Order: sequence, then structure tokens, then C-alpha cells
Amino acid sequence: MSTWISGVGTSNFGKQPDLSPAELAWQAIGEALSDAELASGARPGIDAVYVGSVFGEPGVAVRVLQGHAITGVPVITVENACASGTSALHEAAVALTSGRYEQVLVLGVEQMTPLFNGPIIPQQSDTEGRTGLAMPSMYAMEASRWLYEGRTTLEQLAAVSVKNHRHAMHNDRAQYRGEYTIEEVLASPMISDPITLLQCSPISDGAAAVVMSRNRVSTTDVELVASAQRSGGPWDHRSDDVWGYRLIHDTAQDVFEAAGLGPDAVDLAEVHDAFTIGELTTTEALGLAPAGEAGARAASGATALGGALPINPSGGLLSRGHPLGATGVAQVAEVVWQLRGVAGGRQVDGARVGLVETMGGGVSGVDGNACVVALLRGQHGERN
Amino acid sequence: MSTWISGVGTSNFGKQPDLSPAELAWQAIGEALSDAELASGARPGIDAVYVGSVFGEPGVAVRVLQGHAITGVPVITVENACASGTSALHEAAVALTSGRYEQVLVLGVEQMTPLFNGPIIPQQSDTEGRTGLAMPSMYAMEASRWLYEGRTTLEQLAAVSVKNHRHAMHNDRAQYRGEYTIEEVLASPMISDPITLLQCSPISDGAAAVVMSRNRVSTTDVELVASAQRSGGPWDHRSDDVWGYRLIHDTAQDVFEAAGLGPDAVDLAEVHDAFTIGELTTTEALGLAPAGEAGARAASGATALGGALPINPSGGLLSRGHPLGATGVAQVAEVVWQLRGVAGGRQVDGARVGLVETMGGGVSGVDGNACVVALLRGQHGERN
Repeated sequence: MSTWISGVGTSNFGKQPDLSPAELAWQAIGEALSDAELASGARPGIDAVYVGSVFGEPGVAVRVLQGHAITGVPVITVENACASGTSALHEAAVALTSGRYEQVLVLGVEQMTPLFNGPIIPQQSDTEGRTGLAMPSMYAMEASRWLYEGRTTLEQLAAVSVKNHRHAMHNDRAQYRGEYTIEEVLASPMISDPITLLQCSPISDGAAAVVMSRNRVSTTDVELVASAQRSGGPWDHRSDDVWGYRLIHDTAQDVFEAAGLGPDAVDLAEVHDAFTIGELTTTEALGLAPAGEAGARAASGATALGGALPINPSGGLLSRGHPLGATGVAQVAEVVWQLRGVAGGRQVDGARVGLVETMGGGVSGVDGNACVVALLRGQHGERN
Repeated sequence: MSTWISGVGTSNFGKQPDLSPAELAWQAIGEALSDAELASGARPGIDAVYVGSVFGEPGVAVRVLQGHAITGVPVITVENACASGTSALHEAAVALTSGRYEQVLVLGVEQMTPLFNGPIIPQQSDTEGRTGLAMPSMYAMEASRWLYEGRTTLEQLAAVSVKNHRHAMHNDRAQYRGEYTIEEVLASPMISDPITLLQCSPISDGAAAVVMSRNRVSTTDVELVASAQRSGGPWDHRSDDVWGYRLIHDTAQDVFEAAGLGPDAVDLAEVHDAFTIGELTTTEALGLAPAGEAGARAASGATALGGALPINPSGGLLSRGHPLGATGVAQVAEVVWQLRGVAGGRQVDGARVGLVETMGGGVSGVDGNACVVALLRGQHGERN
């Protein structure tokens, strides 16, 4: 059952240690409420707030919301690793379709720069923490496997970085943007072989917000056709699939089935390119490229703006930035802008159906902590 | 609409820095699953997991659950300050009654000792953080106001601590227990005038878990008659009520109305005695004592085991401990044991209806971040 997105907003993304989480959230919420024209009184009020945040200060949402005169309503803050924002969105969608609420606000917010000076390493009490297995290393093992299998090349991995940094040149709110060559990406400092610096998403501060309703109110509302969330099943290193591949695949199947649409209906996608290899494995797991072809497509320009199926027009996690709890909600905001036709220099022509995928966490023995996939459809209502 | 609690479990509570959050959670989940006799196959499996945790490592739940062979199901981790555990429980109840799931697991887990050496102080970016307004000070202001109004006395405040430490002498899993005098409580080190050390809940590590079902399966299942969650509305220091009073009152009214029961039906209560004054304000806000009488009742023994309406038979946050995200779920576990008649030396005779209240967070300008109230009813099915 569909729900409707009537307003989206974000903060800038980047290293913003002088702002508080509340100030980042304030910007995103203000823009989303204004975008939904809630002040006009034509819409119902906000019945509840769903928040995605991983390292957030307890109660950050209530503090911010009072400033926007949203007080006394239930606030549900969801932590689901890197998929926290879209997990909050999925919970909101379920609450709307079940009749629990009429209209809700979804907020993703994360301020990371005061907390991290280097890569995020799992807790010392866990196997990964004790072995120093930080996230770049997890993805480096995926990349190594695909290179070994001949399923991608170093140059194709680098092409993902080149493309997403170029996309971000049209996104004023992105953390990093620029014109790089394949050679420059490969020559940037090695972080975890074969992942170089320009192939890693950064430590980021940012927020994003979405107003969602049970019923369509405006011609510019974008339809959330379906969303799904799964946690990983048991994982075995002898599996033919790299870590998380099966989880992403199965979650996408849930969504395509619920939506009555297939991968061929998708005009653009915002996916979890925490590291370059992530975009390639995800593209194939989602069915947006045949097995073994995602890398070639990235290199050929097929997934760039102007290509057959643009992926991460916003710049993705690699370039827009990756403030964990905000990421999924920012992906949704980008797709809404695209489906309304207001994405400016990064607009995907004729975009009608957009897909969002977020993948969270990595622990040994589990095929990914959490994955959320959502499918959105524009209604040809343009807002200018 | 009712839901059913078929299994509960907890870890020990206390300073357990050598255990990981996963190990604490492991104990609680194992006990709850065993208590629900899930291994027998007579019950449906676990369809989803709702987790309450404030400072928890991202993805802690998925890591623990795989060890109990619960994999691939949605995991929703909820952060709602000190009310995180019961917020997770409330979300679980809504999911069951709406038909989303048949049977779910609720987990509360928190490991605090590696994080805190002293009182919890809000973030430096907030008004409270900048002014050093730690939680003891927030409650100290409440106590000062009630003392000024003649609504309680120093000795009555101390009586809450004496009672709850005495209750905990019958609870092997409690963090602190012992026989104290009023004088000893008042003579313990001053933390924030008039709150002394023995009137403060400790920094704790612990976990608790609950198995909940849409339908009753066993005669020992305890009915969750109703639960409600509210966030605080705007608060004004000129209010006649102390901070949080109105929020607790209104949340309780939601529950009593939904349950078709009043405060007079309640045989025992587990409430949020983070500091002694908290138990008194909460008791009155819930309607479990007339205005101005909660302190006198604590001093008279009316709220002790053997009294007219025992409050915090487990020892409460003051003595059982207060591992934030675990607290609310541990309160529910205690009430379930009481309603089954298996609470041993701390059993409330003839307990039939029990109430749980958890109150979360404190920020300026808001009347409490979150409050959850739940009403449980026993079915006279005893388990020995």
C-alpha cells in the first residue's frame, strides 16, 4: 500500500563540528515542513516523528522539534547502523498504512566529526574490533574477491568514484566534488588494499527530513510505492556471494513484488556506495545490472548522468557524504527531487521511478545487519 | 487491544565492565526464550525484534540474535532516553495488535560502566550541558520545590531509598541492597542538594528481554492490557507542576482509559525512581497516591512489601540498577514475575494488576522527553 511524500529537506553535508546535531536537524526539518506547505493549514499536522540516528545524543529529536512547534507527539528514534534513516522511513510507512497515523515526519541526523578521527572500527569486545577489521577492510575483502573472480577491475572500481564526484559537482550541498581521473583515484593514498582514499565515503555531519502522509494531498506529492527492511541471515565465508549480496537481493525482491514493478521500471537509483565496490555489488544485487556487468557499466558511462540508468546522481555517499543516520533520508530526498523534475544540473531526464537502497553494518557471521529498499514513483507534478 | 507476554528474562545488574553488551543481552534473551518455552515448538517463532538501547554499539542486536538462531528477521532498535526499553515494548505491542507480527522479542540492553565515571551530563552543545545541569541536579530542583511547598520532607525522600534497598535484599540480581536507616541515607555524601548519594540510581550494566505474542498461548501468559507513549509538550518554569509531572499524568490517563481500569485496580507498580524524588512525583502523577501524600505513604510503609500498594518491589532503579535501555524491560519482567506469583521473597500477595512507568530524558523547555506507561494483568496461571 502506497504512502505519499509531500516535503523533503536537508542540511549541508560535510565536516561541521561547530554545529550541534540539533542545529543540523533544524535546517532539514524546516525545509521539509516548508516544502510540504504545512504552514498553509491545508494538511493535517504531524502525528508522530520517526528518527534515524546511530551516535545521536539521547533525545536529540525532542529538543529540535519543540523549536518547530512539534511537541507532545510520539518520537520513535531508530538505530539500525548505516540503514537507520531508511529504517525509520520504513517504520513510518508501516505506521501510515496500518492507520496508526495520518501524517508523520521522518528525520535522519548524525554528527560524526566530534566522534571520529579515523575509520569506524567495531567495538573492542567484538571479533571485528579485536582484529582491527574496520569498515574499509570489510569492503576491501569484497573488492578483492570480485577482482579475483574477474567480475570487476581496478579501473572499473575507480570509475565509480570518478562518476560520483562528477555528479556531486551539480550538488551544492555535497561534501566533496571534483573532476578526477581514473589514475588519480587509483593513485590516492591506499586505505585498505585495493580501496584507495578517493574510494571511501567520508566522516560527515548532516541531516535530512521527509514529511509523509497516508493520503495524497498535492499534485507534487511523490508516491512511496513500497519499502522493505530485512536483517541478514547466517553467513558463511564459503558462500558464492560476497557479504551482504544476498540480503540486498532478497530485500529488493520484497519491494519489487509488493510494488508490482521490476528492476526494468527503475529510471534512477540512490544506493549505498560507502566504498566504490559497494555500488557495484549493490547494482547487481538489485538486478539493475546483469551479473558481472556493473563495473563495465560504470566505466562506460551507462550509470552516469545522461546514461541509460544513472546511479547516485546526488554524488552518493562517496561525494555527498555519509552522516550515518541521515544518509537514507537524504537518498530519499534526492529521489523525490528527481521525480519532481527539480534536481537542476543533475536532473535525470524523464525520471518517473526511483529506487533507494541502504545497507547497514557488518558483523562476522551475519550477512549484513540491515538493508532497506524503497521504490518511489513521481506523479508528474512539478514544483518550480 | 491486549497482547500477551509469555517469557521474560534478565541478566544480573551491576558494574560488569568485563562483559560485552552482547554477552549481557545473551543471558536475558536465553532466559526469556526458555521461559516462553519456544524450544517446544508449541509457539510460533520470532517474527521481529524490538530493542531498547541508548548508548549501544550499532547493530548489537543482530550480533546477539544470531547466537540464539534468530536471524533474518527485522530488528528495530529504539532510542528514547531512559524510556528506550518500554518504548521498544510499546512499539512491539502496536505491531502485534495491528497484525504486523504474531510473536516478537523485546530486548533492552545497556553497558554503561565503560562510558561513564560520574553523573550523566547532557551534551556540551545544549543549554544543560553548558550549565553543568546533570540529571541529579534536574531532580534536585524538583525535590527542592516539593520541600518548599511542604509537599514532602527530607525524611520521606530518604524513606524511599530505605524501602527500595530493603526490597532489593530479596532480589539476587540487584546491583545494591542493604538495610539502611533514614539517618544513614541523609548522611551519605551530598550529590546535588538535597539529593544524597543513596538517593541516586547507579551507573549500571544489564539487559532484559520479553517474548510477546498477539494471542494467548499458555495459562502462564500475562496480559499486557494497554500501553501508551507520549513525548513532553512545551514546559514553562512558571507551571504549578514539577518537570515531567504532567507528561506522566497524561500518559497514565491514556493507559487507564484504554484498559478500562483506574489506579485503584493496581496492586503493585514499578516506577522510574532514578532519584528518590522521582518515585514520589511519579506515584502522585499516576494517581497511585493523592496529591501531597506520596511521601507520607513511603514513610509509613504503605508502599513497602506488605503495605497497601507496594512500589518497586524489585528494588527499583535505585537498588536493582539503571542500565538505561534495559530498565523498562526489567520493570516489565518484574511485574510479570509478580503476576505469576513467582517473585519469591519479594512477592506481593495476591497481585493481579501491575503497572510499569518509565520516564526519559530532561531538556530545557520540554516537559520530559518521553514517558511510557503499561498495565499488565495476571491470569492466575502460576509457574513453578
